[in-house]
Amino acid sequence: MDNNATATALKGIGRNHSNYVIPGLYDLSTEDTNWVLTSSFIIFTMQTGFGMLESGCVSIKNEVNIMMKNVIDIVLGGFTYWLFGYGMSFGRGPLSNPFIAIGDFLLDPPVGDALMGQIFAAFLFQLSFATTATTIVSGAMAERCNFKAYCLFSFLNTAVYCIPAGWVWGEHGFLNKLGAVDIAGSGPVHLIGGASAFASAAMLGPRLGRYSEGFDPLPLGNPVNACMGLFVLWWGWLAFNSGSTYGVSGAKWQYAARAAVMTMMGSFGGGFISSIYSFWRHDGGMDIMDLINGVLGSLVSITAGCFLYRAWEALVIGAIGSLLCVLAMPLFDRMGVDDPVGASAVHGVCGIWGVIAVGLFADNPIPLDTTNGRMGLFKGGGWYLLGIQTLSVLCLTTWGICSTCLLLYVINKIIPIRMDPHEELLGADLTEHRIRHSQIGLSRAISALAPIKIDLKNIAGVQPIGINPGHERSIDQLRAAEDKLHQWQSYLEQVSNPRITRHKLVADSDIIFKPKSPVKLPGSIFSRRPLTREGISEGFYRPNNSELPVIGATISHKLDKDPNFAWVD
Amino acid sequence: MDNNATATALKGIGRNHSNYVIPGLYDLSTEDTNWVLTSSFIIFTMQTGFGMLESGCVSIKNEVNIMMKNVIDIVLGGFTYWLFGYGMSFGRGPLSNPFIAIGDFLLDPPVGDALMGQIFAAFLFQLSFATTATTIVSGAMAERCNFKAYCLFSFLNTAVYCIPAGWVWGEHGFLNKLGAVDIAGSGPVHLIGGASAFASAAMLGPRLGRYSEGFDPLPLGNPVNACMGLFVLWWGWLAFNSGSTYGVSGAKWQYAARAAVMTMMGSFGGGFISSIYSFWRHDGGMDIMDLINGVLGSLVSITAGCFLYRAWEALVIGAIGSLLCVLAMPLFDRMGVDDPVGASAVHGVCGIWGVIAVGLFADNPIPLDTTNGRMGLFKGGGWYLLGIQTLSVLCLTTWGICSTCLLLYVINKIIPIRMDPHEELLGADLTEHRIRHSQIGLSRAISALAPIKIDLKNIAGVQPIGINPGHERSIDQLRAAEDKLHQWQSYLEQVSNPRITRHKLVADSDIIFKPKSPVKLPGSIFSRRPLTREGISEGFYRPNNSELPVIGATISHKLDKDPNFAWVD
Amino acid sequence: MDNNATATALKGIGRNHSNYVIPGLYDLSTEDTNWVLTSSFIIFTMQTGFGMLESGCVSIKNEVNIMMKNVIDIVLGGFTYWLFGYGMSFGRGPLSNPFIAIGDFLLDPPVGDALMGQIFAAFLFQLSFATTATTIVSGAMAERCNFKAYCLFSFLNTAVYCIPAGWVWGEHGFLNKLGAVDIAGSGPVHLIGGASAFASAAMLGPRLGRYSEGFDPLPLGNPVNACMGLFVLWWGWLAFNSGSTYGVSGAKWQYAARAAVMTMMGSFGGGFISSIYSFWRHDGGMDIMDLINGVLGSLVSITAGCFLYRAWEALVIGAIGSLLCVLAMPLFDRMGVDDPVGASAVHGVCGIWGVIAVGLFADNPIPLDTTNGRMGLFKGGGWYLLGIQTLSVLCLTTWGICSTCLLLYVINKIIPIRMDPHEELLGADLTEHRIRHSQIGLSRAISALAPIKIDLKNIAGVQPIGINPGHERSIDQLRAAEDKLHQWQSYLEQVSNPRITRHKLVADSDIIFKPKSPVKLPGSIFSRRPLTREGISEGFYRPNNSELPVIGATISHKLDKDPNFAWVD
Repeated sequence: MDNNATATALKGIGRNHSNYVIPGLYDLSTEDTNWVLTSSFIIFTMQTGFGMLESGCVSIKNEVNIMMKNVIDIVLGGFTYWLFGYGMSFGRGPLSNPFIAIGDFLLDPPVGDALMGQIFAAFLFQLSFATTATTIVSGAMAERCNFKAYCLFSFLNTAVYCIPAGWVWGEHGFLNKLGAVDIAGSGPVHLIGGASAFASAAMLGPRLGRYSEGFDPLPLGNPVNACMGLFVLWWGWLAFNSGSTYGVSGAKWQYAARAAVMTMMGSFGGGFISSIYSFWRHDGGMDIMDLINGVLGSLVSITAGCFLYRAWEALVIGAIGSLLCVLAMPLFDRMGVDDPVGASAVHGVCGIWGVIAVGLFADNPIPLDTTNGRMGLFKGGGWYLLGIQTLSVLCLTTWGICSTCLLLYVINKIIPIRMDPHEELLGADLTEHRIRHSQIGLSRAISALAPIKIDLKNIAGVQPIGINPGHERSIDQLRAAEDKLHQWQSYLEQVSNPRITRHKLVADSDIIFKPKSPVKLPGSIFSRRPLTREGISEGFYRPNNSELPVIGATISHKLDKDPNFAWVD
Repeated sequence: MDNNATATALKGIGRNHSNYVIPGLYDLSTEDTNWVLTSSFIIFTMQTGFGMLESGCVSIKNEVNIMMKNVIDIVLGGFTYWLFGYGMSFGRGPLSNPFIAIGDFLLDPPVGDALMGQIFAAFLFQLSFATTATTIVSGAMAERCNFKAYCLFSFLNTAVYCIPAGWVWGEHGFLNKLGAVDIAGSGPVHLIGGASAFASAAMLGPRLGRYSEGFDPLPLGNPVNACMGLFVLWWGWLAFNSGSTYGVSGAKWQYAARAAVMTMMGSFGGGFISSIYSFWRHDGGMDIMDLINGVLGSLVSITAGCFLYRAWEALVIGAIGSLLCVLAMPLFDRMGVDDPVGASAVHGVCGIWGVIAVGLFADNPIPLDTTNGRMGLFKGGGWYLLGIQTLSVLCLTTWGICSTCLLLYVINKIIPIRMDPHEELLGADLTEHRIRHSQIGLSRAISALAPIKIDLKNIAGVQPIGINPGHERSIDQLRAAEDKLHQWQSYLEQVSNPRITRHKLVADSDIIFKPKSPVKLPGSIFSRRPLTREGISEGFYRPNNSELPVIGATISHKLDKDPNFAWVD
Repeated sequence: MDNNATATALKGIGRNHSNYVIPGLYDLSTEDTNWVLTSSFIIFTMQTGFGMLESGCVSIKNEVNIMMKNVIDIVLGGFTYWLFGYGMSFGRGPLSNPFIAIGDFLLDPPVGDALMGQIFAAFLFQLSFATTATTIVSGAMAERCNFKAYCLFSFLNTAVYCIPAGWVWGEHGFLNKLGAVDIAGSGPVHLIGGASAFASAAMLGPRLGRYSEGFDPLPLGNPVNACMGLFVLWWGWLAFNSGSTYGVSGAKWQYAARAAVMTMMGSFGGGFISSIYSFWRHDGGMDIMDLINGVLGSLVSITAGCFLYRAWEALVIGAIGSLLCVLAMPLFDRMGVDDPVGASAVHGVCGIWGVIAVGLFADNPIPLDTTNGRMGLFKGGGWYLLGIQTLSVLCLTTWGICSTCLLLYVINKIIPIRMDPHEELLGADLTEHRIRHSQIGLSRAISALAPIKIDLKNIAGVQPIGINPGHERSIDQLRAAEDKLHQWQSYLEQVSNPRITRHKLVADSDIIFKPKSPVKLPGSIFSRRPLTREGISEGFYRPNNSELPVIGATISHKLDKDPNFAWVD
């Protein structure tokens, strides 16, 4: 970035958006920056929400893998956003055209750049949006997408988001110039994400055996985590929408407050309708994915025009959005598009509705020029705004699907995007991350796959989560010690020494077991240092006569291997 | 809302609370609004905390149900708060009287309303309080309250909170006029919530078999989640109390800082005492609910006067609050009031103490008029403030218990508030949401209930969480394939073809299993498209002579049902 | 605190750090305070992150214990910070010297103190740092540190952090006077924490059997929670670093924005390198601890100079930090230092690198005087800054290790810091908190330990988590009832009454089981009130002739104990 250029540019900045290339993006006062930064911090917490929601929705054997994918999304998605994404959306270079911005790659205003603070604040805010958009897709690809292919996808996926984001939000964008309105990204963030999710779920094909029992959703892996993800997203959304006033100076703060309230109102309408729908559909039961995705769908729907609606309109928009969402989920399943978390319905379908709703309901938020003075159809603003919003939907949906398909097609040539079937059966947690969940039948799966001569050697020995293998060994040793104690007892009784009874021996072992001082005696069962041969020979109960028979080859084998074990004789 | 009315009203607003109906509530500058909005965003995260805490405290078979109840609390509680709740607390209509405010229902200031920003900010802040208050009750009703009855309760419960909130915080409220002080809601939020929790727990009766083994608490379902809930609530509480300065202009920011520090100090005192108590009571062990609820109790205690105390007073108030809490929990159990999460003790008992503590310790926070210039008894302010605080406690407790009992009595006439016993035994996750936890003995419960002829048909087939049923089928198929392979081998050896050995077959199956291209060959075991009869006939190893005996009816039955399976002959 | 002293001091405060004792710390405008408070609120959420990360990393039988330790860290660490910690870092007493500040203990500015707001804001901010620093150590001591000893350690550990924090940040500190630069605490927070972690892990010795299977890490207990912890820490870090501009007035806000962006850039670099490293090391698999700790390590590395770097420098610094971290983790294991969460590597090694990096890369952040006008070696600032940063590293590392060793040595004299071996085998959740996890082999461990005559009586009866023992009894009763029904049937058939068939009886029991009204009939199986003898005698199916044989002593025994059970005859 040219230092002088921005310094010169600064002079042209005024409160009234005077003659500067990108006034809106960098027209931030101190208070505005605080608002934008604080909002960004909270928006980033939505990553936690997406991770928990997606991880809770997939089966247990993939729950860690999807978290890792979300981490990679941030790392690679964020890195590429800095590398080229931001420049594709908001670059100010001379080659920028209505379809793509070019410039400001590797953004790095130095100390002394008059716009340094504004640029970094704007970048952080846009970064939080970009990582959100790219994370949406991971859920739709869950449980069957090869991890390395996903990493490559994540690296390139930024472009899928950034180009259309420029159309709607960049000064250069053709949709922006036509007057498209999208405050917090029902279109560029959610619709693009949802369309991309739909395309990727369709290209990957359904999970193994997904529809072998019918079209009912598969059981969730951790429903509490999924609910927690909803909560975290919900509160993050407040900052997402409210922060999208992009400041609080002038009248912006009033609309920030309105955006927050309307976001909640939309979710009330959505939650209300989706819970009624779910009661009706399930004969008085409630499917938690209906409620979770219903609420999320209503939040997506309200996003585009979050401070342009009145309260009852927000309720209605949220209600319609959530209904569309819960209806679309089974529809997509019928179409054979297996989207484990419902991202296509939540972000895609509701994203479409959210963008359209602006054309129907939008107020003109005087004195802000968000809508360029236009109003929605129902507010007497005529058909223009609805038309341009519909055009936005068409452009964004087409772009989202086509670009994702192209991207995955290319990636598939390099790394097959679909897991090997045996990896899918065993789960990516085990095959990619060597994490073995217990109690979910993995041993059975491994033994079933064994005859097919896949290389399972490095997997079969993985210890299950939450167990300390060293402790298991110690317990084996304790049992072996107990056995040996019984042998001794029998032996001693045989050789007729009535003084040493079982009780006495046990009492002594008690003393060994609980040493008074933390400094371990040699010979203690739990001595943490390898005992030398000498140490052992000084240990307690070293038998004077070595004719004591050792019974049980496996036990003696174990004992031999562990020099810590004081009972060795 | 009348546009002109508020516009006119605006003129009367001044920093010094001049002649306007509700100056305090809408007297917000830009900076104040930012503070109020940011605080609200963080306060909403407390819902995540309540959800995780309650979900972690109940038994596993109800952990999702309680999360769903919390979602419903926000959706219905928030909707009704907009519908009538806010108007009952802060309405400015002519019918408002000292006992209830009337007006401002369906709050919706339009664009152009001079107070739009202030009203929405105030509404969001109050909404975050209202949803917190209504969520408190859900924990006390956990594990035995019918879900539909709870939804109805949640819809109406808003009134239980909003009317007394108006008493204390509304311009019209009789307690407010008398000079009651409650900064962040120990009374209206926590005491009302706790009293309501107590009443509802008492009316529902204890969980089945709750006291059959004595009065010890039941084991938690997920103690880590419960701890996490404590953490999330703790940090949310900082915004709850600090944000309750309701702005940062003038001297408010100084007291916002003090409120945050005193909130932490209170929790230090509470955590210290409750951990010592727990060590003492459990012979050196520590009960995690003692510590969790001790800290929460101290936070409740400090809430009413969060910026009116000195540091050591905050410590003492928190310590006393936590001690009251951990003593009240077993007491309530002895009384037969089964409150699974201890909400009655945490919010009820400590809420009482929190309100009283203001009367004892409160400073006069010059230059704010929070206490109307009064001081607590120990600060030389005499008995008046203590008296009015005690009156508040009486009014709020009576209201909380009576209104909740009335409400539940009425709801019970419509939908029985108690689950059917068999639903309670099976858990609401299974009966309401068709979520079947594994490893907790649900199959045993289902078989025990089977002879009683309850309709368990739609429950018995629910798949356990975290398992992919399609994968289980695939593994069955793999095993069947292996069996059939052995049969073939025997057969081929019988018909004397020495070239095809077992090793060869296995190697071939390996090839099938790992296709080079992601496009699946027909006949692959893992082909994801249903194979046509033709596809199968083109598959590998289609036997030329069909006299191969099929052994094992169950295996062949399974294979017949799944056309994907290439080994079918 | 002397009221007059601070009031007088206030007059000396100016924007330009004029002649006042601690101008920087209390030089906060309203906007600055908001920024500092909001940042503090978010920084506290990092405690949630540490808790979830540590709890997810340890084995399941210690996951609650580590959460409790983190709660204790906040309670005792915060309390002692108020008691003496803050005074050791920032006290303004006459005895303050370059090595330790003295004064401002029990900080408590009263109403009317002109600096009240600033002091409380500063205290809250520093408190959030202090609790973070003391929490770092808990992970390294996990799974084998005695809980009571840890509480004592937590009480005293504050001094370990506060004294060196004064060196770097206090007006009195010798490192500060020499010109050491550490914006957000790579040194005082992380390096001290990491060195302390290293020392405590070394002193405690490895977990039982830790290296008996080699040096591979033990399986995590809950990897999803560990990932979630990473996420929560990540977003908290934004506020940690960005908030460390300690305000937004003047040019601070510009650097706050830069700090946030550079924090993210550092994590991108770190995540990128650590994932590539992990792919390479694990033959295409990815170890989640590599990625988690790689990202955290890069965040630690960027912390000291978070707004002093350019974007590509932040990438490089993060990348180097993460590489150092993932290389140090196995190295420490080879050294026999068993750090279950890798705190020594993440906070210690990367803390060193973070402090050094300032000496290499730091810009001079005009117009702030953060670096006192100096620049790093690579920016042409010469060797001075690098030298003083290196000196800081030496002083802090030495202090961290020596003070921790001394502290633990003393504590070990009072309470042995290492758990008893049997407690370690059973896990601290069971032995300290009476929480019994199911499915992880605890029963096996208890039976193996039984012959050693440890007092396990109070442990053996603990019910596993997530089960309702009362429900288990009810199910037993249902089964017993079913058995008795069969007996009756046989009996009735014997006495030749063909009208009452099995079907009829079952139908009747169905009626009993689902009462129409919530008021329970006496004799209902699920009656919640103890039935009186009379009640039972009025129950259904009370046999007229009492000669019905009762078969099965255990069943009748159970039935006798529970008067609720209506089938008793």
